[in-house]
Amino acid sequence: MLLRRFSHIFIIISSLGACAAIHQAGAFEAFMPLPRKPPIPEDNLMTPAKAALGKQLFFDVRLSRTGTVSCNSCHNVMAGGEDGRAVSVGALGKPGRRSAPTLWNVAYQTVYYWDGRASSLEAAIRDQMLSPTEMGMSDEASVTQRLSWIPGYQDQFDKVFHNSGSLTYDNIAKAIAVYIRTLVTPDSPFDHYLEGDKQAIPAAAKRGHHEFIEVGCASCHFWVNLSGPVPGLAFQMGEGFYELFPNFVGSTYESQYKLSDDLGRYLVTREDIHKRMWRVPSLRNVVLTAPYFHNGSVRTLDEAVRVMAKTELDKELTGRQVSDIIAFLNTLTGKFPAQYMPRLPEIPGDTLQLP
Amino acid sequence: MLLRRFSHIFIIISSLGACAAIHQAGAFEAFMPLPRKPPIPEDNLMTPAKAALGKQLFFDVRLSRTGTVSCNSCHNVMAGGEDGRAVSVGALGKPGRRSAPTLWNVAYQTVYYWDGRASSLEAAIRDQMLSPTEMGMSDEASVTQRLSWIPGYQDQFDKVFHNSGSLTYDNIAKAIAVYIRTLVTPDSPFDHYLEGDKQAIPAAAKRGHHEFIEVGCASCHFWVNLSGPVPGLAFQMGEGFYELFPNFVGSTYESQYKLSDDLGRYLVTREDIHKRMWRVPSLRNVVLTAPYFHNGSVRTLDEAVRVMAKTELDKELTGRQVSDIIAFLNTLTGKFPAQYMPRLPEIPGDTLQLP
Repeated sequence: MLLRRFSHIFIIISSLGACAAIHQAGAFEAFMPLPRKPPIPEDNLMTPAKAALGKQLFFDVRLSRTGTVSCNSCHNVMAGGEDGRAVSVGALGKPGRRSAPTLWNVAYQTVYYWDGRASSLEAAIRDQMLSPTEMGMSDEASVTQRLSWIPGYQDQFDKVFHNSGSLTYDNIAKAIAVYIRTLVTPDSPFDHYLEGDKQAIPAAAKRGHHEFIEVGCASCHFWVNLSGPVPGLAFQMGEGFYELFPNFVGSTYESQYKLSDDLGRYLVTREDIHKRMWRVPSLRNVVLTAPYFHNGSVRTLDEAVRVMAKTELDKELTGRQVSDIIAFLNTLTGKFPAQYMPRLPEIPGDTLQLP
Repeated sequence: MLLRRFSHIFIIISSLGACAAIHQAGAFEAFMPLPRKPPIPEDNLMTPAKAALGKQLFFDVRLSRTGTVSCNSCHNVMAGGEDGRAVSVGALGKPGRRSAPTLWNVAYQTVYYWDGRASSLEAAIRDQMLSPTEMGMSDEASVTQRLSWIPGYQDQFDKVFHNSGSLTYDNIAKAIAVYIRTLVTPDSPFDHYLEGDKQAIPAAAKRGHHEFIEVGCASCHFWVNLSGPVPGLAFQMGEGFYELFPNFVGSTYESQYKLSDDLGRYLVTREDIHKRMWRVPSLRNVVLTAPYFHNGSVRTLDEAVRVMAKTELDKELTGRQVSDIIAFLNTLTGKFPAQYMPRLPEIPGDTLQLP
């Protein structure tokens, strides 16, 4: 099985009884309802004021070099938390290398990016502001300088971080991270089902849930976020749960969708064992996050399920199996919190001169 | 005086006693608090469901050819209702000819665009979806077809317009217009002052208000929206209140800011009398809408006040006059309604294929 390649994970999971349970009885221990409060790092506590500031920054195009792109442009939290594109185009007009992942429930991840190269959400945000395929800012100083020209930001940073001079690059990332950690979607039908409401999901989804376990999907897509270990539960922050994709090479899917063109985590570590290794993504809200996979090459969920079964488990699913599994995946759409729009601070009677 | 050039307006205003009042005593009849409910056209009534649908469309980048621009990109209602740029860049990467005006309180306009070429908000929206410098859609059918692929939109149009087959181009514009008519900002300090709270604005603003009248600004910037007649009050929809800008030609401002390069309403009517004629814009929230004028050429409000005094009234203001007038303009910032973000409908397990 896949997990054998990760002896430490295998031991952890076996010791918790989860893996055995998945394959023996489809027991519920493998899945758990999404908690309403995600793990919070000690050095970046949540406060309503910090989340409000982070939300402003998240929606503010002035955080990008050209003033045309905000975090929300590619991670649209009014929708599935991404942009429905194979790859996004950043502020400088350059396409990204990989598909923008959803931001919903990323607070439950132990590492960030498809290849896990950031060990915290804050670290990922610090990268993204300077990435030429994302916000495209030239350096940290240009980010803080730009925001310092906007009195409303200057004031808020000092209040939120209880100190004058708090408008720093690190604090910008911290505030945005706090906002993103509010983006959780509990109360999916499957969560209600796990909590004991046997009518919460339809019969097809129950069959699909069974198939999901029997076929082997749940070997990787398990626990609260259907993405394996979460922070503080088996794994610590920075410790990634990776899988090989494709695991079985040589299928027509592999060439059709260029699945092996990107070597994944190998590009971070340059260790051969990490070739084509990828962080296991969450399946929560997966019906809202097409197109699929690291390169966004597969447009529909139907096809994505077939591709996964073939390339990861060497199985060809029947039409009924696919439709049942999709019925199950449909029950993973949670309740999106009602969010107020932020009000963005301006420079009274003046404006930033953007390119 | 300026108004003499518009005998019909002059008569209307004189008959209402407003113009005389402005020049004689600075009486309050020239200004009125912003009503909470704007005029509503009979053929597009407001309903909460229609406004909610319009809000979704307003924030949906899928309404632009490339899927990169929404109405909110250039008319940012999380801020001053525009984008802080001289001119915006549309979905196709082409810059617009004129500066994107704020959408706050546009429900009180009788015509739309800087040159008044649209006689209703709905007409302006219908234009903008197809404009190559705005949303850039190729034709009406491509707009309705794209939305029809999104089940959540199809369903909502039928419910909101009480008919199957209601996802039409006209109804898209109607829904967006209804949302935009919710964008009103009453309760500015100046409104409270007009309502009798004499402490609602500071002394400098009171002096500025007096200067605003004495210098002559109020000859055009009067009534509820400080933009002249509003629908149903002296003017009907489609009847524009235009002024010459610059009125006094030959100033250094004119050349420095290229104020006469664009012939304004003349480009619509090709009548010589309309050369350099422009719709009088509202001054509500004006401290939030830099840069200024039809070409966005003037970055600061301070400079904009000096330019207006010189080019419209042939007056050079003292520093004190400018700062007092700006203190007054600062009291025109209203209360922005708290708005929930929309949830944008998706195609379950699929995505639009955008360029």
